[in-house]
Amino acid sequence: MYLLVISCILTRIYSLFFEGSEKKAEIIIDAKQVSLIDDLADSFWQALVQCCNAKILSKIENDGCKAFLLSESSLFVWHDRLLILTCGNTRLVHSVEYFIQQLGMNKIQQITYQRKNEYFAHAQLSSFGDDITLLGKYVAGKAFRFGELDGHHNYIFHQDNNFQVSKEDKTYELIAYQICQKASEKLTTVGLNPHEIRAFLQLDRLLAGFILDDFVFEPFGYSINAIKGLQYLTIHITPQANSSYVSIQANINLITLAPEFLRILAPKSIDLLSFNELEFSELAQQYIPKAYISKSLFQQHLSNNSLVSFANYILPQTSFSSAELLDIKGQRHAL
Amino acid sequence: MYLLVISCILTRIYSLFFEGSEKKAEIIIDAKQVSLIDDLADSFWQALVQCCNAKILSKIENDGCKAFLLSESSLFVWHDRLLILTCGNTRLVHSVEYFIQQLGMNKIQQITYQRKNEYFAHAQLSSFGDDITLLGKYVAGKAFRFGELDGHHNYIFHQDNNFQVSKEDKTYELIAYQICQKASEKLTTVGLNPHEIRAFLQLDRLLAGFILDDFVFEPFGYSINAIKGLQYLTIHITPQANSSYVSIQANINLITLAPEFLRILAPKSIDLLSFNELEFSELAQQYIPKAYISKSLFQQHLSNNSLVSFANYILPQTSFSSAELLDIKGQRHAL
Repeated sequence: MYLLVISCILTRIYSLFFEGSEKKAEIIIDAKQVSLIDDLADSFWQALVQCCNAKILSKIENDGCKAFLLSESSLFVWHDRLLILTCGNTRLVHSVEYFIQQLGMNKIQQITYQRKNEYFAHAQLSSFGDDITLLGKYVAGKAFRFGELDGHHNYIFHQDNNFQVSKEDKTYELIAYQICQKASEKLTTVGLNPHEIRAFLQLDRLLAGFILDDFVFEPFGYSINAIKGLQYLTIHITPQANSSYVSIQANINLITLAPEFLRILAPKSIDLLSFNELEFSELAQQYIPKAYISKSLFQQHLSNNSLVSFANYILPQTSFSSAELLDIKGQRHAL
Repeated sequence: MYLLVISCILTRIYSLFFEGSEKKAEIIIDAKQVSLIDDLADSFWQALVQCCNAKILSKIENDGCKAFLLSESSLFVWHDRLLILTCGNTRLVHSVEYFIQQLGMNKIQQITYQRKNEYFAHAQLSSFGDDITLLGKYVAGKAFRFGELDGHHNYIFHQDNNFQVSKEDKTYELIAYQICQKASEKLTTVGLNPHEIRAFLQLDRLLAGFILDDFVFEPFGYSINAIKGLQYLTIHITPQANSSYVSIQANINLITLAPEFLRILAPKSIDLLSFNELEFSELAQQYIPKAYISKSLFQQHLSNNSLVSFANYILPQTSFSSAELLDIKGQRHAL
């Protein structure tokens, strides 16, 4: 594990409330013109992530993939594409703009820019609308909302050109909200080390054969990148009770893995999102435990040939919880 | 119906997206010192609502209550209290500050300030935290969040003094989200008049004996105030498909009325909130149709003696909807 910037471990200070919701960009380039692995040095990626105020913490790699763990989530680079996700108050669109400016649009085949609804939208440096206004200077595209406005939803913008995404390019997101008390307590334990978290999440078993790279944030919070050939999986955990958020993203099938993660985390609500899983409905039917009720179901074919599916599930409540007493002196910024 | 400011009918322009979520303040005063009805002229209330950039459209009244229909929701005034709710981008806390400055804290027994989570939080002029920071200059209080951070929720701030609210002071909110296509189409019909909307909502039957005062906004949107003795009910409708929001607030029992409204509006999701309905759970059990699944249940006794109950229900989805294609040129401000 190559520790690029040891000093930045303090930059991702998890306050009692931390905006876990990610912004995410995928850029597919013309690999005949350039290889993002062979032709670009790590210093390029360092500069790129700095554009959104994130920092590289560490790197793992194999022949086909470089995976950077960031102070605010992750960056994956393949020969023909990159995937970057950042949380907190980063403005990811600036990293996308940097990439466009450095490589030029003629090498770029497809840009997808996605943003989940945020918990603390008022504290964000920009809205999705602001971001796509900036992108619109470079790229013609379409934007969709997957999910109801008053519930969990994702905004997805994609470049609208002649490029057609391969249906083999399947990606998955499994987001867990309000994980159970046991999991939240475990993951907010002071002084927890990466091995204890891997053991709790049973990652050595679930990710056998993957190269792993993880980091425990202070006072809590956990990130892991995992790669195996061209496959990736990344997990980012904001574990604090009452605003817990666990994001699992991969190009391996997370719907079939969902029962394992749901058993450990027992969240009150989950989102499933997939690009190009043609069996989304059948798999969800089979693998999402029956205790979870389907609140939202959205599906859309994009003009770039992607099929995007989004579902939100909730665990029905039968007894009253107490309201959350707010520390109005300490947390006004978050309210 | 006394039409105070006819010109302001254009001020509440409903854009395709309109922030329906209300901010709400209730202030109880010492009626031995002052009567809000007898001692304050309408010009006072006009100035008060101007402080949050709303305007009075019209007024109805009886011996015990004045009800003002506002360009952005409603103001009710009784001898010993006021209730004001405003939506859109109003900054209601400035009206509360004006009231405090004009009357003085020594005449005020209890201030409650409430804010629902917003759809377009990034477009708001302030956050709940900003608002209670301002209130904190005048009032010591406590703040709670009712509802999960990632779901529908209400922030409630109340003055923390020796004053004890009467358990007879029952209030109710019934909020309907994503009303059915039929209701949304009806309520966005061009040129609809108040009588047609009253008929559609069956208000003449449901509110028999009440004095009614309503207004149809351009291009759509509807508000009505209803009073009968000390009783009030007010409805504010943002009817556009995909962001529809119907707020019904009253001191008459809205849980028992819920089946009537739900039958007409058939929303995908509803919130119930009550101050001091001691039978909240039993009534909800009895009156909320079984098709609705309980997603959130919160209950809390406040130190001012109020019992606050909050519930969110959803209608499970079984088939996929298409994603919402966004007009990224026209609606960037809303995204």
